[in-house]
Amino acid sequence: MISVDYSTMCPRYEAAADLLGKKWTGRIIRVLLGGPKRFKDMKEQIPEMSDKMLTDRMKELETLGIVNRHVYPEMPVRIEYELTAKGRDLQPVIESIQAWGEQWM
Amino acid sequence: MISVDYSTMCPRYEAAADLLGKKWTGRIIRVLLGGPKRFKDMKEQIPEMSDKMLTDRMKELETLGIVNRHVYPEMPVRIEYELTAKGRDLQPVIESIQAWGEQWM
Repeated sequence: MISVDYSTMCPRYEAAADLLGKKWTGRIIRVLLGGPKRFKDMKEQIPEMSDKMLTDRMKELETLGIVNRHVYPEMPVRIEYELTAKGRDLQPVIESIQAWGEQWM
Repeated sequence: MISVDYSTMCPRYEAAADLLGKKWTGRIIRVLLGGPKRFKDMKEQIPEMSDKMLTDRMKELETLGIVNRHVYPEMPVRIEYELTAKGRDLQPVIESIQAWGEQWM
């Protein structure tokens, strides 16, 4: 753990919190911590999310360098998403939310 | 750290993530990790947030048992907010977001 200066707000904290606070983003990252996934595998764990929303979020996460998209030229074509190093580094965030949820929700 | 089953979504994770993902909530909890605060002290660290929004969020967090509100019968009356045990237990979440933000944002 790092030493946090709680006496002043930090723009990097705010940026990270806003990114993770977007609807579905935390769920998507949690699913991808289980390994590379296809679109339909992600939908299976987050069935309430629309296809359009998942598509939008995956594009955002790719742009942010949190997710890589792999296209396998098979027949039919296979597309998988996986976390980058930046994305995998979110594991402590996801696990601390999980731990708190298990204790308090 | 706990062992997380990433093969299936967890309702407690979802509930915790939705709570923390609400606009301003993560910032408010970060400020209160610095100790009990008055309304105006919180506003100082989060100046973009309106009075109404802060009032609403503090009521929510009180209802959820994350924040306690103390009224000191001085003249003029002094009101302070502080985290409960449930709220203080969010410190690992806030610190892991801070650490990720410092490295990647």
